Amino acid sequence: MALTLVLGGARSGKSAYAEGLISGFSPPWSYIATAQAWDSEMEERIALHRARRGAGWQTLDAPHELAATLKALPPGRPVLVDCLTLWLSNRMLAEADLATECAALVEALAAHEGPVVVVSNEVGLGIVPDNALARRFRDAQGRLNQTVAARADSVIFMVAGLPLFVKGSAR
Amino acid sequence: MALTLVLGGARSGKSAYAEGLISGFSPPWSYIATAQAWDSEMEERIALHRARRGAGWQTLDAPHELAATLKALPPGRPVLVDCLTLWLSNRMLAEADLATECAALVEALAAHEGPVVVVSNEVGLGIVPDNALARRFRDAQGRLNQTVAARADSVIFMVAGLPLFVKGSAR
Amino acid sequence: MALTLVLGGARSGKSAYAEGLISGFSPPWSYIATAQAWDSEMEERIALHRARRGAGWQTLDAPHELAATLKALPPGRPVLVDCLTLWLSNRMLAEADLATECAALVEALAAHEGPVVVVSNEVGLGIVPDNALARRFRDAQGRLNQTVAARADSVIFMVAGLPLFVKGSAR
Repeated sequence: MALTLVLGGARSGKSAYAEGLISGFSPPWSYIATAQAWDSEMEERIALHRARRGAGWQTLDAPHELAATLKALPPGRPVLVDCLTLWLSNRMLAEADLATECAALVEALAAHEGPVVVVSNEVGLGIVPDNALARRFRDAQGRLNQTVAARADSVIFMVAGLPLFVKGSAR
Repeated sequence: MALTLVLGGARSGKSAYAEGLISGFSPPWSYIATAQAWDSEMEERIALHRARRGAGWQTLDAPHELAATLKALPPGRPVLVDCLTLWLSNRMLAEADLATECAALVEALAAHEGPVVVVSNEVGLGIVPDNALARRFRDAQGRLNQTVAARADSVIFMVAGLPLFVKGSAR
Repeated sequence: MALTLVLGGARSGKSAYAEGLISGFSPPWSYIATAQAWDSEMEERIALHRARRGAGWQTLDAPHELAATLKALPPGRPVLVDCLTLWLSNRMLAEADLATECAALVEALAAHEGPVVVVSNEVGLGIVPDNALARRFRDAQGRLNQTVAARADSVIFMVAGLPLFVKGSAR
């Protein structure tokens, strides 16, 4: 079924827009969170995101096992994955084989029998980072975004909270 | 009256495009500059911007008191605010309460009885910055851009000097 | 003849898209590479790019002498320049007069009697870089992108491998 990629920068309104897309379907909705609270800054961000979501949401944590979590969803269930960037970061720090895991993830996203909205960050539009790990992450994120975008029915680039349709059109 | 947000990266042609928008109205035009020249690099940038503007412009400096400066404008006066990013940076370094001040600023922008064009930077499309202050600034800038964009009649994303209309349309 | 600018972030699919545009013309096609392999990471990237291109491509290396290389092409030859960002970086490290060289380059791009597709990076959408050299590069790149875009018939901003037409339209 329909796969939508919501791409954008930090604080571009990606999550709020993606939640709006999913809530256009009948509840319950599954929310797959990939964040890991390893400091107070991150805890605060997670708490803010949870507070914004109301009733009707079932939250699943999948900082690492994202493909398996998607496969375990009931058919027809609308699902929001928020976000690919934190999952990719978790998997890189765990020294996973990113090429293999990204390919498996994209298959799982495309295989779910129900609406899927995926949030991801665009991180490649600044100056080249100084350190090699950041450059490696930037490359892996860009490749993953391209792969998901190629399979997606709609791709939306968020600018200051507003959607720009790069693939597909406004519903 | 009409509020326009001109958003973009460094050297994307935001200021020149915004000046073109304002000069479509009858002069005199007010130019509210938020830059503070704290080194020679910044002095040079300010001088270049001033040199490009010709007759018809009244320049007001408001590195901190931006909302008050907007409120003191005569009704009907077309105004260009260049830019929100430097103002936000000045207020963060002054340890201001950013949430309160940003809300007051957006009200002042929306309340002016005349055309307002606001320039701001998109800063969230690179890799996560190393230091916490930069991350905090990035978040505050993203939130401010979203709030202004939500109230604006037109939002334009500049790419290599060319306008991409994200909200509203070409005039 | 037609000049096209393909602009985007790291791993946004710029090169693949640009190659697709050029291969819509009759071969042979010229590929002007501006990369210099000064470490194994860069060698790997160059090798990957070369491997993707098939028969029909004539590869010319021009890490520095880009305008002269363009002028030496036979009339009518379709040419892909990949990319302006590495050329600009090479010229900045060589302490060239960037303003003069960029102006000469843009003239050479516009003067070629045949289809020209130019790849360049957008690098100004992150937080302000810490070091002055990076800021200077960011400014020079932004100015060069604006100048090329102003002369181009088409400007395409790549988002996750997908083209967004900023100037001109899909062919």
